[in-house]
Parts: sequence; C-alpha cells; structure tokens
Amino acid sequence: MQLYIANQNYSTWSLRAWTIFAHYDLDFECKKLSLFTSEFYDTLGDITPTSKVPALVDGKISVWESLAILEYVNETYLAGKAWPASANEKAHARAVSCEMHSGFVALRNEMPMNCRARREVILSEAAQKDIARIEQLWSQQMEQYPEGWLFGDWSIADAMFAPVALRFITYGIELSAPAKQYQQKVLNSPEIQRWLQEASLETDIVDEDEVGTPV
Amino acid sequence: MQLYIANQNYSTWSLRAWTIFAHYDLDFECKKLSLFTSEFYDTLGDITPTSKVPALVDGKISVWESLAILEYVNETYLAGKAWPASANEKAHARAVSCEMHSGFVALRNEMPMNCRARREVILSEAAQKDIARIEQLWSQQMEQYPEGWLFGDWSIADAMFAPVALRFITYGIELSAPAKQYQQKVLNSPEIQRWLQEASLETDIVDEDEVGTPV
Repeated sequence: MQLYIANQNYSTWSLRAWTIFAHYDLDFECKKLSLFTSEFYDTLGDITPTSKVPALVDGKISVWESLAILEYVNETYLAGKAWPASANEKAHARAVSCEMHSGFVALRNEMPMNCRARREVILSEAAQKDIARIEQLWSQQMEQYPEGWLFGDWSIADAMFAPVALRFITYGIELSAPAKQYQQKVLNSPEIQRWLQEASLETDIVDEDEVGTPV
Repeated sequence: MQLYIANQNYSTWSLRAWTIFAHYDLDFECKKLSLFTSEFYDTLGDITPTSKVPALVDGKISVWESLAILEYVNETYLAGKAWPASANEKAHARAVSCEMHSGFVALRNEMPMNCRARREVILSEAAQKDIARIEQLWSQQMEQYPEGWLFGDWSIADAMFAPVALRFITYGIELSAPAKQYQQKVLNSPEIQRWLQEASLETDIVDEDEVGTPV
C-alpha cells in the first residue's frame, strides 16, 4: 500500500489520511511529493482524476479524498474499529468529520497549517465562529470522555481535527481548559510527534501558506 | 424518523439526504422549514449543533451533515446496499461523493440550485473546470454502465450529484451525449420528478440564490 502525501509542514489533508496508518501502525509506504512541482502533478495525475493529495494505492485499487481513504482503510484493514461502536456515536463522529471535511472554510483560509511557524493573525468574524464551534465540540466531548479522544477511543474524527490542533498552536489561539486538554492529547500522541519531527526536516517554503506576523 | 429539509427549490443538501429515503421508499416524515426564518433556526438549533439542513432524528439519535445522514441510513436501514458491493467501486463511489461534499465550490457559488428558473450565467474559469470534471466523471461512468446510475445500481454517489443535474438544466449547460444521458436518467427518476413537483408548489424567494439573466 502506498500513501501519497505532500509537505508535512503544510498539507492538512495529507495529515488526516496519514494519521490512521500511523496510529494503528499499518504497513504502508509513504510517498511524499513536494507541493506544486511537476513531479507532484505527474505522479498524482497517473493515479487520481483530481491530482490532489492524499491518494492511496492498494494493489489495483486507488482511492482519493481524505475521508474516502479513511473509510476505506477502516473497512478494509481495521474491521470498522476506527469509528465508535455505538450507532449513535458513530453517527455523531461521522457528522463532525463531515463538518470538518466540507466546512470551516474561513478558519482553513485564514490559518493555513504551518507546523514550524508561530504567528499572529487578525481573524474575520467567520473564522472566530469556526473556532467557537471547535471549542464547543472539543469541550463537550472532553466532558464526556475526560482524558480520552473525541469519542473515547481514537476515531476518524480525531484524524479530521488533528490539523486544527496544530493550527491553534501556530496562531496562538487561546482555548478553554477542556479544549486545551484535547489539544494537548493530540500534540503528545506519538503519531503527531512523528509528523512534526518529519515536518521539521523540510525546507520548502509555500508562499501562500505563510501568513501572519512572526511572534 | 423525521428528516428536516429546507426549500426544495433551493436546498441542494436537503435534496441529497432526501433522495435516499425517496429512492428506497423508506418510512420517514419529511419536515420542511423555510430557509432563514426563525422557525428554521429554532427547530434546527434544538436538534443539531450547526443549525443547518439536512438533519435526521431517528428516535434518540440525531444526525446532521448530508453525507453522515446518507451513511447512517445506508448502514442502519439498507444493509449497506447504497454503496457498490465491490471494495474498488465502493472506494471510488466514496471518493467522488467526497469530491462533491467538499469541493466544486465555484460551481456551487455561481450556479445555485433554483429548480423552477431558467437562467444564463457567465462562469469563471474555476466553475468551468468544475463542470469539466463532472462531465468527465459522468461520461466515464456511463461508458462503464450504459443506461445505469453512476456505479450501475443507484448509490449514494447519485444522491450527491443529483442537484448538479438540476443546476445544469437551470443554467443551460451543454453536455456530451453520455453525460447528458446520465442527466436524463436523474431527471426522469420518480424521486426527482416528485422533488421537482413539490418544489414547484413553493412561492418563497431566496434573493441570494436568484442569479443570472432569465432566458
């Protein structure tokens, strides 16, 4: 199985897909492509119709789109355990994962992931509303699962929100105690530590993702 | 089971969730709320954290986000048959559904669903690129499944792309023969005919979705 990702410093969708492989220590080969290079477009053009990361090649099967990859890996290699077991919680975990997949546009635009940087940004009202929704979600889940992941055991929902935990560090976003506790759990996990370590070795600069004032 | 939707003339995400209930003739109560009214926000605020349609209440379980609702209904009431049976096709159907769920932003912004209208619009390059990707997808699938749905039997992917078939009628988008064949299949299906009939009875006008020049 080959998972194609992009620059670990910047690529949030790569991180979302990669995390499930790292968390469950699945056997895969990670192929990293530098964003916006001809190698990036040539390689992805051969295996996906969209030329975007992440992309997974598993023998004769190719899968694109982060959430589709996570669902595929969950069903094919994890016997479904990457979603909560109860129907109610599984539905909620999918709902919040879908919120992240299609929404939080202002947050994503105004606070691009940039693992190695520490910046200050002035946020729009829309981005502040996005942060408030995430704060609400994380806090509520931590009330239910103190010390746990969003739904107790690790789930795809945690993969979807991992890049947000990193963004909140980069841009110095203040969180309530329970939301901060979740953020710390993400940051301290071995897979995110490994991701950050690998990202720190990169030297590429993607100008459009370099926003804000250094602090 | 109660499915909360909004104006059928305008609400694409409502249509996506509603279609699976209509296609499989599932037992549900459809609760329609007029967009942007206080009843809309009050009702949805009680059952979802996002106050958006669609929303599903199934006994003690509430689900929001169209794709999460489709997955929930598929697993809970359809024994999984709303995705293709083979792992390869299921992965592809999920990937294109995710493309629709998170992408095609220019198309969605510049061509809002407006079932009863016939309009002309000048499209950006990004919207034209979105149309080209959909044209490619529909044509390729029709080569594989002539006369069929996108993956042969009806699947959640068809729910995701149904509103696009209607938009292409509203804005007079020309399609290749195979893509047009798929569009016609969507339009002629009993559930879409029913949706259009119900939409035609609505009189509300949502200004922000009224774009283009009448033709």
